[in-house]
Amino acid sequence: MALYTKEEALKYHSMKRKGKLEVISMKPCKTQKHLTMAYSPGVAEACRAIHADVEQVYEYTNKGNLVAVVSNGTAVLGLGNIGPEAGKPVMEGKGVLFKIFADIDVYDLNIRALEPEKVIDFCKMLEPTFGGINLEDIKAPECFKIEQTLIGEMNIPVFHDDQHGTAIISGAGLLNALDISGKSIKNIRLVVSGAGAAAIATSRFYESMGLDKSQIWMFDSRGLIHKGRTDLNPEKTYYAQDKPCTLAEAMSGADVFLGLSAKDILSPEMVKSMGKHPVIFACANPDPEIDYAVAKEARPDCIMATGRSDYPNQINNVLGFPYIFRGALDVRSKVINEQMKIAAANALAKLAKEPVPAEVCAAFGVKELTYGLDYVIPKALDPRVLESVSPAVAEAAMRSGVAQNSLDLAQYKKDLAARMTESKRRTALVVDSFGYDL
Amino acid sequence: MALYTKEEALKYHSMKRKGKLEVISMKPCKTQKHLTMAYSPGVAEACRAIHADVEQVYEYTNKGNLVAVVSNGTAVLGLGNIGPEAGKPVMEGKGVLFKIFADIDVYDLNIRALEPEKVIDFCKMLEPTFGGINLEDIKAPECFKIEQTLIGEMNIPVFHDDQHGTAIISGAGLLNALDISGKSIKNIRLVVSGAGAAAIATSRFYESMGLDKSQIWMFDSRGLIHKGRTDLNPEKTYYAQDKPCTLAEAMSGADVFLGLSAKDILSPEMVKSMGKHPVIFACANPDPEIDYAVAKEARPDCIMATGRSDYPNQINNVLGFPYIFRGALDVRSKVINEQMKIAAANALAKLAKEPVPAEVCAAFGVKELTYGLDYVIPKALDPRVLESVSPAVAEAAMRSGVAQNSLDLAQYKKDLAARMTESKRRTALVVDSFGYDL
Repeated sequence: MALYTKEEALKYHSMKRKGKLEVISMKPCKTQKHLTMAYSPGVAEACRAIHADVEQVYEYTNKGNLVAVVSNGTAVLGLGNIGPEAGKPVMEGKGVLFKIFADIDVYDLNIRALEPEKVIDFCKMLEPTFGGINLEDIKAPECFKIEQTLIGEMNIPVFHDDQHGTAIISGAGLLNALDISGKSIKNIRLVVSGAGAAAIATSRFYESMGLDKSQIWMFDSRGLIHKGRTDLNPEKTYYAQDKPCTLAEAMSGADVFLGLSAKDILSPEMVKSMGKHPVIFACANPDPEIDYAVAKEARPDCIMATGRSDYPNQINNVLGFPYIFRGALDVRSKVINEQMKIAAANALAKLAKEPVPAEVCAAFGVKELTYGLDYVIPKALDPRVLESVSPAVAEAAMRSGVAQNSLDLAQYKKDLAARMTESKRRTALVVDSFGYDL
Repeated sequence: MALYTKEEALKYHSMKRKGKLEVISMKPCKTQKHLTMAYSPGVAEACRAIHADVEQVYEYTNKGNLVAVVSNGTAVLGLGNIGPEAGKPVMEGKGVLFKIFADIDVYDLNIRALEPEKVIDFCKMLEPTFGGINLEDIKAPECFKIEQTLIGEMNIPVFHDDQHGTAIISGAGLLNALDISGKSIKNIRLVVSGAGAAAIATSRFYESMGLDKSQIWMFDSRGLIHKGRTDLNPEKTYYAQDKPCTLAEAMSGADVFLGLSAKDILSPEMVKSMGKHPVIFACANPDPEIDYAVAKEARPDCIMATGRSDYPNQINNVLGFPYIFRGALDVRSKVINEQMKIAAANALAKLAKEPVPAEVCAAFGVKELTYGLDYVIPKALDPRVLESVSPAVAEAAMRSGVAQNSLDLAQYKKDLAARMTESKRRTALVVDSFGYDL
């Protein structure tokens, strides 16, 4: 079933050179003249230019293309609080994805800092160096305070991908699912299984898209979140329903199920009891809340999405963060706001409706991909995603007044394509030079 | 005179791609299988292995070859407190030098943090990610407390290059100068002009080499540091002489002058009044405490060194930090201790006594380089420095009980050479692919 063995995955990380990211000196250093410009004394010209006008840091350093992936290792994948060292392979991997999908340079910073205040202090100190901060694998509820504080106090985009990634990608899927089923977001009932960072943030994002919180039934490991409970943090309390009910009761007639919890939460009977064209986003990894085949057998008219690449409609964060940061960096946005996130979801939803070129289908080993129950979300490796999402995000930043640069969007699309071609060529030169036997 | 114009230096920093460092994804990411190993779900195997044994972070991530260059921008080059943004070109440049001389990956972290406690907190949080920390361009006296605290509290090497770089390189020069002049370090008199981080640290290092503090006459901008003064920080107070005197008085009969201050501090008369084979380390940049030609005319028997590449005996930190960190990382040293610094100085001093291959001379545009007054310190770009210094530092770490790995030194030298060949080839692929017209 799995594409790789444990031994292969470990070997991948240690072979030839340990880890996955290398820092390259990209300017010529072949002569004494080059070296005296790269460092002392010539570098002083760049220092003086920035000292005279701090905006020039975007001209003479890599800040404008540099994102810090910051994690304290308290909620790594589904592995939990395994610590910053054990989280480092994930954060380097995040850097790999930022690079190969959007040519963004990442320094992964896995820090020993459990208290939110320490993470906040750390990130605030980073502002002179980075164009943006991607928070990653920080547990709830601390992650909410950390992100909100940093967004309020920093002038570069701060984005907790565990929260917003699933929100945006599943939001795109939801837009298309509602389109197919002919329902309005104003009239649906949503059942959420899970009340962690992603579940809370996705519910909030759906509210930005037009849902009212009264339409949301959220369950944590102790059952429905309702007003009779005394064990709730403020983020959960916000979603409290008046009276308790069981998951089966909530599912009866529900339109959308969003699972960010654990496998086998959902029974075929629950799925059968849902409304017409039920939407099932079963995102537990690696095993979804209900098996794909079981759900499809129970309700052939369902629109099902999972976190897995081997089923249709994969909800994969990689459809979001590289392109969202690319757009945000390229207009020097001060934040990644709701408008930009909604623009990303809309762009993804729109792309899924467009005809898929034969070569893209071939890359995924399928004859065709047609908009419908089994294709409401673009494929994670579709090369058209960059040119769809980044300009949409950049445009939303400009329209909502948070962009510090403006761009000609038509030219920007062309530049993006050329940039990625060069970036991939450069990465291939390095990778190929190692001569991996893999 | 200068090798470059202001416009060239600025263009160098902004052309093609802004800044000087790029992060490359170095493992294959061509197939779905590759991607599932680089990130979720395959990456979890590496996470679990590290969670089970935290030492495995050195096997499955880039930590073991990764150095943080941390600066708060309070003492950048000779430019002073220009702030972290304006310091970033220097820190990226430091990363360039680490890479091209020792294949070490650097994340430059230019932080907004003026209080020593903030810098300390920041660096301590970094320990899970990095194999070592190079503090840079942090002003005195804060730099002393920051470095000492971190050395005491962290289990990876922390090294403030502004302090120890000059100490070690000039220390190598001093060893050879004393050899040539037939003097013993126990009997010399040292005059130090300047009492900043580098001056204090160099004086301390000379003490490690055998000098007694009573042999040191240190001057700051207000004159000799002596016991009658009430304006001294503890680091200066340590060097207080009993009674005041002028610089000219101190220089009369002195054996060694160490300048880390400003141009034209030293007059020809002062130089004339020094002892036999006077040693003049005039390190003020870009203009030394006395002009090279003026000093040589005053005392043809002097051994003069400066910070400049266009005079003999350049005291260039790049002879130290890349190779010292290389050796420290390769034996997983917990610190960079005095023994390792002294080993580096000894290795440099020894290398200067060895015959210089014709191709090395040719690279510097000279017919020959012969050990003597005008060649007591190896050339900054001599490719033999790596194989001299890194094994010496690694050996000293092993002998002094701070190494967590042991190495076969003969094999290590061969591995270093092969490693640099590959690293240079890889960097050249990237640099050449940009097609710079420079």
